[in-house]
Amino acid sequence: MRKIEHIGIAVKDLETSNQLFEKLLGTPAYKMEEVASEGVKTSFFMNGPNKIELLEATNPDSPIAKFLEKKGEGIHHIAFDVEDIVSEIARLKEEGFTVLNETPKKGADNKLVVFLHPKGTNGVLVELCQEIRE
Amino acid sequence: MRKIEHIGIAVKDLETSNQLFEKLLGTPAYKMEEVASEGVKTSFFMNGPNKIELLEATNPDSPIAKFLEKKGEGIHHIAFDVEDIVSEIARLKEEGFTVLNETPKKGADNKLVVFLHPKGTNGVLVELCQEIRE
Repeated sequence: MRKIEHIGIAVKDLETSNQLFEKLLGTPAYKMEEVASEGVKTSFFMNGPNKIELLEATNPDSPIAKFLEKKGEGIHHIAFDVEDIVSEIARLKEEGFTVLNETPKKGADNKLVVFLHPKGTNGVLVELCQEIRE
Repeated sequence: MRKIEHIGIAVKDLETSNQLFEKLLGTPAYKMEEVASEGVKTSFFMNGPNKIELLEATNPDSPIAKFLEKKGEGIHHIAFDVEDIVSEIARLKEEGFTVLNETPKKGADNKLVVFLHPKGTNGVLVELCQEIRE
């Protein structure tokens, strides 16, 4: 848990929100990327040592589509940068947290990611992410 | 907008959640502080260049009490560190954002703060905060 890597924000329309967040943050998105396995299109903005990720659903079964339906647009998750995702998973399981995917999976922005169950973290969807090296 | 200063998380019981977040982040809260004007008790955790703020309501009219009632525990706001809050307010108003308090007010952790209306930011409650100097 070295820093907040990014905050993920669920939006209805990525193009519209890209313009909005460019105005807010004073810088354009540096990347747009689709993660087909998760049913999302994403965009990323740098903000000093941190990033903001916007997420739009690409199909109605996407977790983001379900989130939007239930809660509307807003903050979806907080992602922490970790040095070694496998040892961090082991540490957190030992501490009693529930990991949603035991094996890290490939996420957006060249990362290996796991999520913790929000029931064990005060309703906060926590992502751990480790940069994929080489 | 130099970095994510902190993420604010609404919780029901600060003592319980302090223990939980100490396990999650691997470090104890470095500060607990009541902001009577906002009806909240807060705790802060360092996470590299960023912080996590937990917020518990101290009375039923507190914005945090209303948030918990409506949405339950979870991420409440995202706060960005700014160099000069007055000029940043002017810039954002020029860009069409709505500021909730025109005059910066004293927040927790030695900060001057303003909030943007979440209707103009895809449902995200955005705080700007500037360290109070001297």
